[in-house]
Amino acid sequence: MIQRLAILGVGLIGGSLALALKQAGAVAHVVGAGRSQGNLDVALARGIIDEATTDPVAAVRGADMVVVGATLDATGPLLDTVCAALADDTVVTDVGSTKGSVVAAARMALGARFARFVPGHPIAGTERSGAGAAFAELFRDHRVILTPVAETERSATTRVRDMWAATGAEVITMDVAAHDDALAATSHLPHLLAYSLVDALAARGDGADIFRFAAGGFRDFTRIASSNPAMWASIALANRDALLAACGQFSTVFDGVVAALESGDRASLERVFERARAAREGAVIPESNSPASALRQDTDGQ
Amino acid sequence: MIQRLAILGVGLIGGSLALALKQAGAVAHVVGAGRSQGNLDVALARGIIDEATTDPVAAVRGADMVVVGATLDATGPLLDTVCAALADDTVVTDVGSTKGSVVAAARMALGARFARFVPGHPIAGTERSGAGAAFAELFRDHRVILTPVAETERSATTRVRDMWAATGAEVITMDVAAHDDALAATSHLPHLLAYSLVDALAARGDGADIFRFAAGGFRDFTRIASSNPAMWASIALANRDALLAACGQFSTVFDGVVAALESGDRASLERVFERARAAREGAVIPESNSPASALRQDTDGQ
Repeated sequence: MIQRLAILGVGLIGGSLALALKQAGAVAHVVGAGRSQGNLDVALARGIIDEATTDPVAAVRGADMVVVGATLDATGPLLDTVCAALADDTVVTDVGSTKGSVVAAARMALGARFARFVPGHPIAGTERSGAGAAFAELFRDHRVILTPVAETERSATTRVRDMWAATGAEVITMDVAAHDDALAATSHLPHLLAYSLVDALAARGDGADIFRFAAGGFRDFTRIASSNPAMWASIALANRDALLAACGQFSTVFDGVVAALESGDRASLERVFERARAAREGAVIPESNSPASALRQDTDGQ
Repeated sequence: MIQRLAILGVGLIGGSLALALKQAGAVAHVVGAGRSQGNLDVALARGIIDEATTDPVAAVRGADMVVVGATLDATGPLLDTVCAALADDTVVTDVGSTKGSVVAAARMALGARFARFVPGHPIAGTERSGAGAAFAELFRDHRVILTPVAETERSATTRVRDMWAATGAEVITMDVAAHDDALAATSHLPHLLAYSLVDALAARGDGADIFRFAAGGFRDFTRIASSNPAMWASIALANRDALLAACGQFSTVFDGVVAALESGDRASLERVFERARAAREGAVIPESNSPASALRQDTDGQ
C-alpha cells in the first residue's frame, strides 16, 4: 500500500496510474503536481488526485512513492529540483520512453538517492494527452518495462514492480540498452517513418488532395504521425544512437526492395513480403489498449 | 438494373459487390466464375451468386455486365479468353489496384470491345480474402475511382458508375496516371514501408522477441504487412514507375530526418513532425470500413 503518492505531471500516463491504483485500493493519498492549473483542476474534479500543487517540492515532501510523468527533457531538472525534499526511503520512478538518457540524468540529479530511482516505461498510451484522457484500464494486460541498474536497490525495484502489478500490467525487467534498442525498432523508428511519409505526401503538388484517395490502411499506418511533435523530437534525440542503428537496418531492407522493384525482380520482392508477413503473423504483438480495441478488426485497404 | 452480372473471381471485392447489388435490388441474376470450386460453393451457400462455373467463357455469355475480380496478372489473359463470348453491348469493368497496366492489357486483349471496358478501382478492402469474407457494406461511403480513357464509351462509364453508386459508394473519375500516382503514394508505398520494417526487425539478432515490446501503435502501423505477398508484388511491379517516384519522395524526407537526428538538429526534426501532424489532421482521410470502424479510437503507444 502506497501511503502518499506524488505524481509529477498528471498526464495520460500519470493520471491513469493514479486511477488504476485507487481502483485497486493500492494507494491512500495522491498528490499531483504540474505547471498547468487547468489540468490539475481536471485531475481533481475527476478524482484522479486528492491534492494539487504547482510546486513539485511540496508534492514530494512526505511521499513514499514519486512518479515522474514529465517529458524526457524535463525529467532531469525536475529530479534535481525535488532531490533534497525526498525522504530517505522514498522510491522514485519515471515513465519515459527512453531509459539511457533518463538514467544518466537521474544519476546526475539524485546523487546518493539514485539507488532508489527505478527507471520505468509503461508500454501503453494513446494520442490523447492530459488528465482528461486518463482511464484506469490503460495498463491492463500491457507491459511495463523496468530497467534497474547496478546501483538500484532491490527493494526499490520491488516496490515499483508491485505498484505497476496493481494496475493489471505485466511487469518485466530489461537492461537499459536492450530496452532502448527494442523501443527504437518497434516504436521510435515507426514514428519517423510515419512522419516522413505524411510530410513527403503533403509536399507533393497535389497537396492535401492526395489523402482523399487513401484507404483505411493508410489511416492506420499514419495514425502515429498525429503524435506530439515536440515530445517525439525529444524521444528521437534521447535515443539517438539506437534509433540511428534501427534506421540503418530499415534502410538496408527498403533500399533492397526499391532496387528489386527497379529491376523487376519479382522473386526478391515476394521473398521480403513473405518473410515480413510470416514474421508478423508468427509474432505475438500486443493489442492496443483503447476501450474499443476488443472490437477491432484487422483491415487493409488497397 | 443489371440482368445478368458475371463476376470473374468471387473474392472479397467481387463477392461484396454482388451482395451489395442484391441488397439494393440492382441485379437480377449473378453468375460467378472462379478456379476454386470450394470458394464458389461458399459463394453459392452464402447467396452471393446464383450460379457457379469454373469456365469464364460460360459465365460471360449473355451477361450485360462483367466484373473482373481477378488478380492484376490474370486480368489480361482472362479478358483475352472471354473476349469472343462478349455480346456487343456487354460492359466490362475491373477492380484492380493499378490502372495503367490494366488499361494496356485490356486494350490488347479486347480490340474493338475495349471501348466498353471501364477501368475501375474500389478503394476498400480488408486483409481477409475469398467469398467467405464478403459483406454487403464494404463499399458504403467509400470511393470507387473510374479511369475511362479517350476510347471509352460514355454510356459504358455511366453504367459502371450506376452499378457502384447502388452499393453506397461515392464514384469519382480520374486520369489513369493521376490514379496510379495517388495510389502509389497512399497505398503502395505504405505497403513497401511496412513490409520492409517488419522484415528488418525480424532479421535482427533478437528475432521475433522484439515484437513483444511493441505497443498498440506498432500493430496498426504494420497491419498492412500481413497482406498477400504475391498480390502486392504484382501491384508494385504493375505500378513500378509511379511507385519508384513515390519511394524517391519518401526517401528524400526520411534521409533528411536521419541527417537531422545524426547532427542533433532538433529544429529540423520538429519542423518535419509538425508539418506531418498538421497535414494529417487537416486532411480528410477516409475511415476504414470494417464493421467495427465506427467504434474505433485513435491510439498511439510509445
